Order: sequence, then C-alpha cells, then structure tokens
Amino acid sequence: MKIRIAIAGYGNLGRGVECAVKQNSDTELYGVFTRRNPADVKTLTGVDVYSIDDILNHKDKIDVLIICGGSATDLPVQTPEYAKYFNVIDSFDTHAKIPEHFANVDLSAKASGKIALISAGWDPGMFSLNRVYAEAVLPAGKSYTFWGKGVSQGHSDAIRRIDGVLDARQYTIPCDDALDAVRGGKNPELTTRQKHTRECFVVAADGADKARIEREIVTMPNYFADYDTTVHFISMEELKRDHAGIPHGGFVIRSGATGLNGENNHIIEFSLKLDSNPEFTSSVLVAYARAAYRMNAEGMSGCKTVFDVAPAYLSPKSGQELRKELL
Amino acid sequence: MKIRIAIAGYGNLGRGVECAVKQNSDTELYGVFTRRNPADVKTLTGVDVYSIDDILNHKDKIDVLIICGGSATDLPVQTPEYAKYFNVIDSFDTHAKIPEHFANVDLSAKASGKIALISAGWDPGMFSLNRVYAEAVLPAGKSYTFWGKGVSQGHSDAIRRIDGVLDARQYTIPCDDALDAVRGGKNPELTTRQKHTRECFVVAADGADKARIEREIVTMPNYFADYDTTVHFISMEELKRDHAGIPHGGFVIRSGATGLNGENNHIIEFSLKLDSNPEFTSSVLVAYARAAYRMNAEGMSGCKTVFDVAPAYLSPKSGQELRKELL
Repeated sequence: MKIRIAIAGYGNLGRGVECAVKQNSDTELYGVFTRRNPADVKTLTGVDVYSIDDILNHKDKIDVLIICGGSATDLPVQTPEYAKYFNVIDSFDTHAKIPEHFANVDLSAKASGKIALISAGWDPGMFSLNRVYAEAVLPAGKSYTFWGKGVSQGHSDAIRRIDGVLDARQYTIPCDDALDAVRGGKNPELTTRQKHTRECFVVAADGADKARIEREIVTMPNYFADYDTTVHFISMEELKRDHAGIPHGGFVIRSGATGLNGENNHIIEFSLKLDSNPEFTSSVLVAYARAAYRMNAEGMSGCKTVFDVAPAYLSPKSGQELRKELL
Repeated sequence: MKIRIAIAGYGNLGRGVECAVKQNSDTELYGVFTRRNPADVKTLTGVDVYSIDDILNHKDKIDVLIICGGSATDLPVQTPEYAKYFNVIDSFDTHAKIPEHFANVDLSAKASGKIALISAGWDPGMFSLNRVYAEAVLPAGKSYTFWGKGVSQGHSDAIRRIDGVLDARQYTIPCDDALDAVRGGKNPELTTRQKHTRECFVVAADGADKARIEREIVTMPNYFADYDTTVHFISMEELKRDHAGIPHGGFVIRSGATGLNGENNHIIEFSLKLDSNPEFTSSVLVAYARAAYRMNAEGMSGCKTVFDVAPAYLSPKSGQELRKELL
C-alpha cells in the first residue's frame, strides 16, 4: 500500500509537492486542502481539492499531511494544530523562532502520538544536515554557509515596496573571492559585504525618479546597506522574459584540521544548484514524509527535525538494498 | 563522564583515531590494543598499549572499541569477534562483501546487546550518506561518484610488484570534462576511461628497463588498462620529498529533475579535499563511536551502518543546541 499524502495550502510549495509525490512510486496524493473555495482551485494533476475546514473528516485516509503554508503566520498556528491529528511535515524557516516552534509542535505531537517533522527543505534542511555532519567529523574547524546565486523573495518584496517600483527581482550572489579563500583552507573572517553581493532588476513606473529609487535600494538598512548592490532598470517585458524562474542554491563548506598538531587540513563542501527553489524544497518534504510515516509506524512520536531522522528512513529502498547499492 | 574509546590495531588509522579523540572534549582514549609486543609500540600521545590477547580483561573500562584493521583479512574476523563484548566501529570498505560482513556482525551484536557500526569513513561513509540523501530527494535523476585527486594504495602496491620497481605512488584524478558535464546536468553515460585518469610516479632500480616497466603498468588489467595512465620516473629522493602525503578526496554528484514534466533540473554536489586520507577516516570513526555509545545507552543493539544513525547522535551538542545553532 502506498503512503497517502495530503497537502495543506496550494501555492508554489503545494504544487511542488503535488509533482514530487508523482515521482515516488511508494507515495500517492490523497488531495489538496485549501482555505479558498475548493471549486476555485485548479490543480496541476486534477487531484481532489477540499476545504481545509473539513480536513478532520478525512483523518483516517491520510498518512502524512504536508503543510505548505508560510513561516510568518501560517505554520506557527497550523503545524501545532494539525499535529494533534496527523503525522505532519513543514518547512518552517524562521531560524530564530525554531526553538519556540519546536516546543509548541512537540506538545501536540507527543499528545497525539504522531510524528511532526519541522523545518525540512534545504536551508533549514539539507544545509543544516551538512553543517552537523561536517562539524561532528571535523571538530577543529570553521563552517561557512553561502547562498545563491538565487532569487531572494524577501529582498525582491522589499524593492517592490519602494515608491515608483512596479516590479523587481533580487539575486543573492556569493563572492568568488570569499569562496576561494574558504576552499583554500584559509579560514577567513568574512564580513557580510565580503560574502555576498546583491543584484537587482527593477521595473520603474513611467516618469519615476530612477536615481532616487536606486539610492533607496542600496541604502536600505538590513536588506541592502551592508552589501555591494547593483541595480539594473529593465522593462516589464524583460523582467517577465528573463527573470521568471525561481532558481537558488548555495554552499556549506567546513574547513578543519586533524593530526597531533593540526598539521593536515580538510575541506568538506556541499552545494546545491536549483532551477526551482520551491520544487526542490517540495521534493525534500516528500522524502521526509516517507520518513515520518515509517518512524510513526515503528512507534515514534513527537516533534523531530532532520537531525533526528536516520537517512535510511528517507529512501524507498530496504536496508539490504541500501547497503548493497549505495554504501 | 567522557566516552572511553579504545583502539584495536595501531597503524595509520589507529594513529589517526588517537589524534581525533584528543580533538573531542567528550571522548578520552583508554588505550591501544596491538598484536605486536606492547613494549615495542610507541604511541604518539604516550597512551597505554596492551596486548590484544588481554582485551577482555579491560571489558568494563571501554565504552567503544574502534577496530583499525584491514578489510581484506582483519575486519571480517575481528569485528564479529569483538562485537560479542564491545560496542565496535570499523571502516570495512570491500563494497562487494558488505552484505556478508553485516550479517556476520549483526549476529554477534544482537546476541551481546551491543552496537556494531561497520563501514564508517568517507567511502563507504560520508559519500554513501550523500548518495542516499540525494537519491531520496531527487528520485528522477542520476548519481555519480568521482574519486581524487588522491593516492590509491592498491594501485601503488600493484606498481611496486613489477620487476625493477623500487617504489611508486599512484594518483587517481577525476576528469574535468566529465565533472563539468555532470555538473551541467547533462546526465552523461561515462566510460571508466572518461571518468578518471591515473598518474604514476615510479622509482626504478638502476639499469632497469623503464620502457618495459611503463608498458607493464599501462597495460595491467583491472588496475590500469581501462584508463589513460601517465608514468613519470623519478628518484627515490623526489618520491620521498614530493609524494610523502596520503591525500585523497572526491565528489558525489546527483543531477535530477522535478516538475510536472521534469522541466526543472537540480544539482546536489558533495565533495571532500583531504590532506590525509587515514586521519579524515579516523575522524569519522570517532564521531560514529560517539553515536554508537549513545544509541547503545538508549537500548539499541545490532549491526548498523551510517544509514541507520540519525545525525544528532554524531554531535556532542544537545538537540536543543543543534536546533538553535545549526538548523
């Protein structure tokens, strides 16, 4: 029998999960649950759409619920709530609030006897895994995370709020010099400005003061002031043609020494180059849905993160197959 | 109280474990056990050396035994034997025989109630982990493993067995063109020759026929015949000066598609660049010793591989610290 997955929330991430479930022969999509009028939601695969208000009526037909809401306001409410009834997965990514979210979700999941796996995706997620593995293996060392090249939704939104801006796309770009220094084992101390640059493609309204817009962008506190930022004004046509994708990626690198006196150096590097940030995140969510289902079937419950999941749970292959084919 | 680690077998790997234990504040080295006369073994740190024949007398003072023998003849005997009495770790790396080794060790470890973690290191080990994670996350894709640049002990030994060769060092080198094609998402079918080249540094005896030696190397079945191989004749002095290290490394890359029709591509890449192959392997062994100790303390037993170990067990940090600092 296949693992029956349901989606709560049908945006980019929900659509990504819908596609990812199709790629896995041991999972099937039960349906999409939405806050909108189900009749108004057209899915990519034609799977059934239900009102989120009715979800408890489907309780026994769903093995894992993947919650595809936003971290700001949706997940802090939804994940603890649905963990009372379902094995759940979320991609909560407000790093500073993870301990609080974990505690809330853990209470629900322990009480219900379900597994609630939070903060899956690539950062938090695959990048976090690599930080833990690399630090455990090379305790005498230094870790670095670089992001990009990729679209930052938050920074793009910040530009769009500037007066006279019709639309914008912001790319975060890791600095090659910094990457090379880290890979060379130099363990540099890097400032914010030395690690990443920011490149902005902006569509200005007719007659808008471009010099003023550019100044507002590059001096914007928190978002741009600490970076070298480049601003390009382009047409709406160019934006739609050349910047429609949502690529992202990045690098987790640890440089560490071993030997009696630290005489040997080692570099562990993990990187992602993603054509579609939400689709990749969705693929991670589905792999962890498989893990959550199996861990719960073995009697485990409570809130978990990627750190608590043995890798074998993620693969549809048996332990025997994994040892023979991939070890 | 610190985790008390003992070493069985004191070669390059044993010395590496000795150094790695020092780098971890929650582990301490109880001693080295050797088949040699203990009085003849001088350790790097001055830790006690005992005869391996006496090891059962130390049973209650050792939390984890790291077995640093060879995969050909030592580990198939030692790991099942010592798993009867200790939590054990080994770096068994004969890929084809892992299922058999697992079965033998599992019998012992289940009977004793201990944890026996086999095949830890980087390949098998860290590379295996990345193959499993990447395949689980991108099921519609293709995985590649490249090794090097680094010293292959087996290939160096094969050259040394040729008549007229005094010493030799062989480097395995991944081909840049193949790496680039894989990173570019082209999912190429690669022959053995297209993936790696081999470079040999050979010290010939005075008056030896170098043309014959070179021919014997490049045509050697299994080892060199399927590769583009370069042979350099150098002096013993040059070999000792320029080729004393044991560097290694490599790349695990998966390229996979997502989306309703596979329209988006993603590259997951993990790489290692190691100054010292045995010291890095030793560092992995010590991290897994921590995990084995904790898993056994929680009541788990039997044979395990890196696939069965949740990442959190590897880190000295608490779950709370990991979520706050590394998630």
